[in-house]
Amino acid sequence: MKKILAIVDHVYEDLELWYPKIRLEEEGHEVVVAAPVAGETYSGKHGYPCVSDAAIADMNSEDFDALLVPGGFAPDKLRRDPKVLSLVKEFNDAQKPIGHICHAGWILISADVLRGRNTTSTVGIKDDMNNAGGTWIDEAVVIDGNQIAARTPKDLAPFSKALVDALKN
Amino acid sequence: MKKILAIVDHVYEDLELWYPKIRLEEEGHEVVVAAPVAGETYSGKHGYPCVSDAAIADMNSEDFDALLVPGGFAPDKLRRDPKVLSLVKEFNDAQKPIGHICHAGWILISADVLRGRNTTSTVGIKDDMNNAGGTWIDEAVVIDGNQIAARTPKDLAPFSKALVDALKN
Repeated sequence: MKKILAIVDHVYEDLELWYPKIRLEEEGHEVVVAAPVAGETYSGKHGYPCVSDAAIADMNSEDFDALLVPGGFAPDKLRRDPKVLSLVKEFNDAQKPIGHICHAGWILISADVLRGRNTTSTVGIKDDMNNAGGTWIDEAVVIDGNQIAARTPKDLAPFSKALVDALKN
Repeated sequence: MKKILAIVDHVYEDLELWYPKIRLEEEGHEVVVAAPVAGETYSGKHGYPCVSDAAIADMNSEDFDALLVPGGFAPDKLRRDPKVLSLVKEFNDAQKPIGHICHAGWILISADVLRGRNTTSTVGIKDDMNNAGGTWIDEAVVIDGNQIAARTPKDLAPFSKALVDALKN
């Protein structure tokens, strides 16, 4: 059993949090949802509520085996928090799996972990991903080392399968 | 690869449709979402949109290997449609897997397929399930023959795993 950190804020993409979260739980893993405030209800882009388990400020990357970053508009806020960026860098330096989908790429850009990496995201931020030193590829799932990227909710099945597989290694 | 029919209406429970749908697709199966009108957008209880693939009136149980009935308030409407009830009876008579969760039990009650069966649902309709001849059990997933029942979105991981397993047989 592994422990996965997911980070959310208001207007997270509902299924991009919940599908991988429940899928990882199906495998017996634990997913901790951290947000700016612990125990607060965050509303998805389409309205699905998520009560946060913990505050991002209290999180320690050493306590987790992988990081899940859902998209939506939440990453636009989360990328401004230096603690979020240091967490992303720590997971990346430790080569722990980081799953990011859709607009979540914004956070990896600001954490400056995309240089030299193949990656993907919603086509809306393709230019941002390339400008940050990544090589944006139009595929459902792009895996480069510890980074597992997907484009949109339509890619959730293979994206989550890739996360499950990464945690088996 | 198997073909699964899911039936929805307005105010379906968002994750109770989408989690099993994507999970079954991950296995390579096809899920057809039928609703009163084909190609219309149905909004989940929390707002997640679903564009229906087909109209319930056009569905034929012989074209499918299993039936998925999400909960929410949608079953309150769907149980009034004789075509929905005849579809449920046909899947049940053919002993094809029927997955139902939360308030979806209402539809099985009106299709009169619960007599003598162990089952579960949201506790809110426990009395209705027992009055229809079922034996309501407070467990995450209750399997009785072809019927796979679960209580709430919290049970989605084992519920969907049970559906995946049933389609392997």
